[in-house]
Amino acid sequence: MIARILEACLYATNLDAAERFYVDVLGLERYSAVPNRHVFFRCGAGMFLVFNPARTSGEPSLVGGALVPAHGATGPGHVAFAVPDADIPAWRARLEAAGVAIESEVTWPRGGRSLYLRDPAGNCVELASPKLWGLDDPDA
Amino acid sequence: MIARILEACLYATNLDAAERFYVDVLGLERYSAVPNRHVFFRCGAGMFLVFNPARTSGEPSLVGGALVPAHGATGPGHVAFAVPDADIPAWRARLEAAGVAIESEVTWPRGGRSLYLRDPAGNCVELASPKLWGLDDPDA
Repeated sequence: MIARILEACLYATNLDAAERFYVDVLGLERYSAVPNRHVFFRCGAGMFLVFNPARTSGEPSLVGGALVPAHGATGPGHVAFAVPDADIPAWRARLEAAGVAIESEVTWPRGGRSLYLRDPAGNCVELASPKLWGLDDPDA
Repeated sequence: MIARILEACLYATNLDAAERFYVDVLGLERYSAVPNRHVFFRCGAGMFLVFNPARTSGEPSLVGGALVPAHGATGPGHVAFAVPDADIPAWRARLEAAGVAIESEVTWPRGGRSLYLRDPAGNCVELASPKLWGLDDPDA
């Protein structure tokens, strides 16, 4: 049985800008990187991966002689990160202080709120309370 | 602080084919759907979302008067789902029985294995032991 999402993935051609955004603004921990190819972040019990599609869409890699298949999308993708609902005001203030525009804020019918912003590549990034899906909030 | 990945997202224009694949082959639980727009799946303490970019890339939606921003990528994206390493042989058999080609199988240097396959839209889907990232395996 599938237990959970292990890796969520977005694409960006400017990985330095992506890294600054996800580390400095969103506070993720950089895990590893290959310049101009990818930058990986630890995120709870999973990984958030940003690839440069100019490098990965046509170029499979090899690990121990086995193929790691090619992938790479263009256009704005989407990811949501879980935050406690109680932290949403602090996130709003942090994003404003960092000069990151909040594209929208949604209060969901069943509870929970989402802040939507864009990463430097134009991907749609959401900071959301899991309540919106009827899931428990993480600890604040 | 960001607690975890809440939503991972891929794109597919044929959502019926996507639903059959993720429910019948991978065993995810369908959570909700809007025909021809999206199909959502519960996945552990998160959600796996498949959107039709022909509908969502240029068409923001409204919830309680607030904008849910547009997004939508083209080309093969990537997601990985966590499975226990001990389940990999059973997954291999299940995929073969379902007639789904395994594009590659990788044994990672630090432990853990990945099976790579394609969803009907051509997205790169990975079934992987979290060991590959130094994370604990889920219960088998």
